[in-house]
Amino acid sequence: MITTVIIGSGNVATHLLQAFLQSNTLKVIQCFNRKEITRDDIPVTADISQLQEADVYVIAVSDDAIAEIASQIHFSGKLVVHTSGSVGMDALHPKNRRGVLYPLQTFSKERNINYSEIPFCIEAENEDDYLLLEKLVTPISSHVFRIDSEKRRKLHLAAVFVCNFVNHLYQIGYEITEANDLSFDLLKPLIKETAAKIETAVPKDLQTGPAKRNDQKTMAKHLEMLALPEQKQIYKLLSQAIATTDGRKKL
Amino acid sequence: MITTVIIGSGNVATHLLQAFLQSNTLKVIQCFNRKEITRDDIPVTADISQLQEADVYVIAVSDDAIAEIASQIHFSGKLVVHTSGSVGMDALHPKNRRGVLYPLQTFSKERNINYSEIPFCIEAENEDDYLLLEKLVTPISSHVFRIDSEKRRKLHLAAVFVCNFVNHLYQIGYEITEANDLSFDLLKPLIKETAAKIETAVPKDLQTGPAKRNDQKTMAKHLEMLALPEQKQIYKLLSQAIATTDGRKKL
Repeated sequence: MITTVIIGSGNVATHLLQAFLQSNTLKVIQCFNRKEITRDDIPVTADISQLQEADVYVIAVSDDAIAEIASQIHFSGKLVVHTSGSVGMDALHPKNRRGVLYPLQTFSKERNINYSEIPFCIEAENEDDYLLLEKLVTPISSHVFRIDSEKRRKLHLAAVFVCNFVNHLYQIGYEITEANDLSFDLLKPLIKETAAKIETAVPKDLQTGPAKRNDQKTMAKHLEMLALPEQKQIYKLLSQAIATTDGRKKL
Repeated sequence: MITTVIIGSGNVATHLLQAFLQSNTLKVIQCFNRKEITRDDIPVTADISQLQEADVYVIAVSDDAIAEIASQIHFSGKLVVHTSGSVGMDALHPKNRRGVLYPLQTFSKERNINYSEIPFCIEAENEDDYLLLEKLVTPISSHVFRIDSEKRRKLHLAAVFVCNFVNHLYQIGYEITEANDLSFDLLKPLIKETAAKIETAVPKDLQTGPAKRNDQKTMAKHLEMLALPEQKQIYKLLSQAIATTDGRKKL
């Protein structure tokens, strides 16, 4: 049985704990969070000096707080991992063995997630610890990948485009429907199908729309209809980018 | 039994025909396409003068070709509809009764679609024809909406953001993974979940990421990592837009 302590109380910490509780090869023996959010099933502390001894410490806090928390762990020679996409493994204090366990998914506290589908990106300073992390994750998800800090940063950058930026485009869609007394529900099957299509094809081969067709008349009308300058800018820039990508493809 | 003729051979025409063939209240008696793509089950013509008499003519061709094709239909007083999101009903020749049947979905020939989930946006010059179109669509999908030309244009504009532009962001994610010897598959669960989340929440309430957190350090690193100037521009503009939306929310 691998014993773990989970540090943090945000979305990632909450979901990792949930996922770990489903596993029968690891045991969460303690949670640490400054907010003292207590639980019935696991001891919780808000005092870092009260951390218990465990095989793996999982730091799931905001990027800026990782280094500080890691340095405050009063054990040494333990395996300490963080869960961030954009922070290097070397942000962790070297008094402990270091690693990273990055679940590549968007988490909201109120949503249930199928953990078995999440890609876990793993990195460790030494091979034994890599294998320990692999053993820790495998009962939760079979999608385990060896990804170093540099590649993980690239992956996180890509995730910003396909998740954070995509969500903002959904928001613009929402604003356009709301402003015109239309239900956002009308767009939901389209959103779902657009995401489903990329399962089996390269996105650029699926590109459709006025920019792809170089339909200047429709694009001019669309720009006229957009109320906010930032929306016009986004429309112009993404239309140009679609035309350029298409150009690159033809070269 | 409502008799129809389908005009066009593109993605929308192909899928509408497929959907219509599943209905037992309407019969497709003929298809017209200039490419003379023949079918075993339905007579096909490439000669517009050979159009047969039917209750409804469905014009599913590119936006620019709608007016011309509509004027070439040698019948008058018939119900003629187009399927475009951005073209007004008045683009159709007034010698016939006019309407619009806009399926709000992204179609690819090679993908199967669950037609029953598609929102059909309907418009007609007179109420009897509206009811006829409703009767024609209802066996296929229960999501039928009365949407006039002006609102349909707004809906189409919103669709460009949540479908065409979103697909381009997927393409950037694809390019980042490819350039770094990472599999695009790693991003697929994230793409799926990002799209699934909006089913039950307003997108801006789901917004996460460096721009939302005003994490200047990560954003600066991301801009450094991006190779193409157009990708840097998109990163900057969408990050600003996320910050602005968040600002608007707080007002």
